Amino acid sequence: MTDVKNSEGAITRVPGFRAAGVSCGLKDNGQLDLALIECGQETNAAAMFTTNAFKAAPVEFDIGLLSGTEPARIRAIVANSGNANACTGIQGLADTRRMAGLVEESLHLPAGSVLVLSTGIIGKHMPMTKIEAGIHSASQVLSTAGGKNAARAILTTDKVIKEAFARCVIGEVPVSVGGIAKGSGMIHPDLASAHKSASSPTCALHATMLSVIVTDANVSPELLQAALEQAVKVSFNRVSVDGDTSTNDTVLLLASGQAGNQVIDLGSDSYDTFLATLTDVCVSLAKQIAFDGEGATHLVEIVVKGAKSDCDAERAAKTVATSPLVKTAIFGRDPNWGRILAAIGRSGIDVAPGKTGLWLGDVQLVDNGEPLDFDANACHEALDTPEVKITADLGIGSGQAKVWTCDFSYKYVEINAEYHT
Amino acid sequence: MTDVKNSEGAITRVPGFRAAGVSCGLKDNGQLDLALIECGQETNAAAMFTTNAFKAAPVEFDIGLLSGTEPARIRAIVANSGNANACTGIQGLADTRRMAGLVEESLHLPAGSVLVLSTGIIGKHMPMTKIEAGIHSASQVLSTAGGKNAARAILTTDKVIKEAFARCVIGEVPVSVGGIAKGSGMIHPDLASAHKSASSPTCALHATMLSVIVTDANVSPELLQAALEQAVKVSFNRVSVDGDTSTNDTVLLLASGQAGNQVIDLGSDSYDTFLATLTDVCVSLAKQIAFDGEGATHLVEIVVKGAKSDCDAERAAKTVATSPLVKTAIFGRDPNWGRILAAIGRSGIDVAPGKTGLWLGDVQLVDNGEPLDFDANACHEALDTPEVKITADLGIGSGQAKVWTCDFSYKYVEINAEYHT
Repeated sequence: MTDVKNSEGAITRVPGFRAAGVSCGLKDNGQLDLALIECGQETNAAAMFTTNAFKAAPVEFDIGLLSGTEPARIRAIVANSGNANACTGIQGLADTRRMAGLVEESLHLPAGSVLVLSTGIIGKHMPMTKIEAGIHSASQVLSTAGGKNAARAILTTDKVIKEAFARCVIGEVPVSVGGIAKGSGMIHPDLASAHKSASSPTCALHATMLSVIVTDANVSPELLQAALEQAVKVSFNRVSVDGDTSTNDTVLLLASGQAGNQVIDLGSDSYDTFLATLTDVCVSLAKQIAFDGEGATHLVEIVVKGAKSDCDAERAAKTVATSPLVKTAIFGRDPNWGRILAAIGRSGIDVAPGKTGLWLGDVQLVDNGEPLDFDANACHEALDTPEVKITADLGIGSGQAKVWTCDFSYKYVEINAEYHT
Repeated sequence: MTDVKNSEGAITRVPGFRAAGVSCGLKDNGQLDLALIECGQETNAAAMFTTNAFKAAPVEFDIGLLSGTEPARIRAIVANSGNANACTGIQGLADTRRMAGLVEESLHLPAGSVLVLSTGIIGKHMPMTKIEAGIHSASQVLSTAGGKNAARAILTTDKVIKEAFARCVIGEVPVSVGGIAKGSGMIHPDLASAHKSASSPTCALHATMLSVIVTDANVSPELLQAALEQAVKVSFNRVSVDGDTSTNDTVLLLASGQAGNQVIDLGSDSYDTFLATLTDVCVSLAKQIAFDGEGATHLVEIVVKGAKSDCDAERAAKTVATSPLVKTAIFGRDPNWGRILAAIGRSGIDVAPGKTGLWLGDVQLVDNGEPLDFDANACHEALDTPEVKITADLGIGSGQAKVWTCDFSYKYVEINAEYHT
C-alpha cells in the first residue's frame, strides 16, 4: 500500500521526528543552509557512503561512528549546504566533530548520537562561527512542521526540493517512511556500506547526493542495513547527471521503532513489505534528482534488457547515461540512435551486434542490428515529452537494468563554468 | 633528429606516395569528402582499431584483410567523411567491399590491396552512386601535391586539418614519416590491434578518430605493428574529447621500404630511432585532435605521477580528462581544484589522500592533502593560456602518465545538439 504522491514535509510526517532548516550565512541571500533532524528517542541507523577515495570529513566521521562494535544509537542529524568540508585535511575532521558536539550540547544528547552531512564547495575550511550560530538557532526551532525547511536547507544548485513519503502495514501496525534528498550536479552515486572496501563492490561505474530517510518502523540494525543496501542498488546507485561521483555522497536511514510493530528481523515475512516501501521512497527521490539535474530539460530512463547478466545491463545503461553525445542529442531532440549503440558498444560488455534491438519510446529504430525505416515524427514526439525512454534489447541473455539520467544542455555548462571558487 | 614543425602536405612529402581529396556530395556545400592515398609500390601495413563492440563495416573489412595468414600487401587507402557506415548491417559490409573494389578497378590494383576508412553519421547506408563518382574522380587527380587535400577530405566537425611530418636517419639513409588525422567529437580512442580481443587490452578506459601514417622506411611487418602499438599507447590512446569511443576509430600505417635502408627487424638498433620518430608524429596528431575538440577553447594536459603503476596513473588522468565538472571549470577559467581530486578519487585507483599534491600550471594548490593558500591571480593566469597543465602527484609510487583533452563549452553542446540526423 505505497503512496509516494503526497510527500510534502515527508520526514516530519513520520511520527516522532522533528526538523528545522535555517540560514546561517553559508549561502548568499539568506537562503536556508543548515538542517537539523531529531528523533525523540534513540534510533537504529543504516548508512551508505561514497566510494570516492577522497572522502569528505563528515563521511569519515559518520563511518567511524557507525562502525563501532556496538550498534550506534542515533538521535539527530545535522546537515549543511554551501561547503562540503572535503579535501580539508585534519582541520576538516575537527570541524565535523565540533558540529556533532554542538548539536549534542544544544539538544542535551549523549556523545556519539549525532551524524553529520555536508555539501557544497570542495577544499575550503568550514566557517565554524556561522555553523555554531546556525546549529544554535536550528535547535530552537525544531518542529513537527519543519520537514520541508530541512529539505530546502540541504540544496545546492538544485531548483526544487526533493521529498518522498510512503506508508505500509507491518502486522496490523501502520508504518511510515519519509525521505529527503539533494543533488543536481556531481551526481553519479556509487554508494557502499561503511564496512565494505573503498573500491566499488558492484558493477556500478562511478554528485553530491545526500539523502536522509526516517521511519518509525521497528527494524533490527542488521536488517535495516540490508534493506537500505537493496533499495539503494536499484535507486540512488542507478542515477547519473554527469558521471562525477562525489566525495560526499551519503544516504542515512534512521528507524525509531515508535510504530510498535513486531521487530522486523531475519526471516520476517514483513521484511519484503518494508523493503518495497523503502525502495519506493528511494526510487522516487532518485528520479527527482535526475529530473532536477543541472540544466536538465528531460528525465531520461534507460532500460537495457537481454544482456548476459544484470551487471552487464547496468554497465551498458550507465555508459549510455553518461555519454555526452547521447545527452546532447536528447537535448537537441535528435533521434541520433547511433550514439546510443556506440555507447553500449564501448561499455565493455558482451554484445552480438546482429541481435540488438533499440527503441525510443515505443518507436523501434533497430531490429537484429539492422537499421529500420522509422517514422521521424513519432520519434520527435517521443523526444518532446518530459520523460524520454530508451530501451535496448541485446538479445543474448536475461540480464536487465533500469537507469535514470537527464539531458545535457547549455545551462549545464553555464551552471558549472560560472560556479566560481 | 625529429622535426614535426613543418608538416604541410605531410603524407605526400614521403617519397613514393600520392594522394587526392575530392568532393562527391556526401557533405554539403561542395566540401571535400573523399580521400585517396596510393603508393607506387606494395607496402607493409600495420593497423589499430576501435575496441567498440559495434564495429563499423570498414573496420570489420580492414581487420579481415589484415588478419590473413600472409601479410597483406597494401597499395591504397580510400577514406570518406559524412557517413560512418556503422550499424548498417549486411548492406554496410557489401558497400565497404564495393568501395575497395572500385579503387582496385580505377587504379588497376590487385584484389585485396585496398583499405577503407569511413567517418560521419552512424546508421545510414552509404550513397554508393556518389561514392563511385568520388573514387573515379579522385583516382584521376592523385598527385604528390595532394596530401593536404586528403587531410581535409577526412574531416567532419574538425575546424582545422591535422598533419605531422618527421624525418630520421636509419643507418645513413634518410627516412620520412608523414601522417594525417581527423577527430573532433566522439573522441576517446581505445585502439587495439586486429588480432587482440574486442575488449580493451590495457588500462585504457574507453570519436571517430582516423589517422593514416605513411613512411618510406623498410620495416618488417611484425616490427611495424609493434612500433605502431607502442606509439599509439602514448598518443592516440591518451586523448579524450568526450569519453565516447567511436565505432570507427582506426589508425593505419603503411611502410613502402622505398628509402632502401637495411630492414628494421627484431633486435635492430635502428628500431628505437624509427619508433621515436613515429611516436613524435602520433603525439603531434593526438595533441592536434585534443586542441581541435568540439567547442574547445583550451588544450589540457593532465599529468599524474607518483601512482602505484603507470596503468593507475593513466586511469586517474583519463577520469580527470573526461570529467564534465573539471572540463566546464576550465572553460570558466575557474581553479575549482576540488573537482580534479574528486575525479581522481572516483577513478578506482589506490590513493593516499594525505600524500596527494596538486598543481595548476606551476601553482601548487594542495600539499600532502592539505589545501594551500594560493595566489588566485597566478591561477587565473595559468588558466588563461591556450595550453593548460594539471599535475597531480599521488606520492605513493613511481607510476606516471600524460593525457590530453580539451575544455567543455557552450559550443560543444551547440555542435552536438544541433547535429541533426
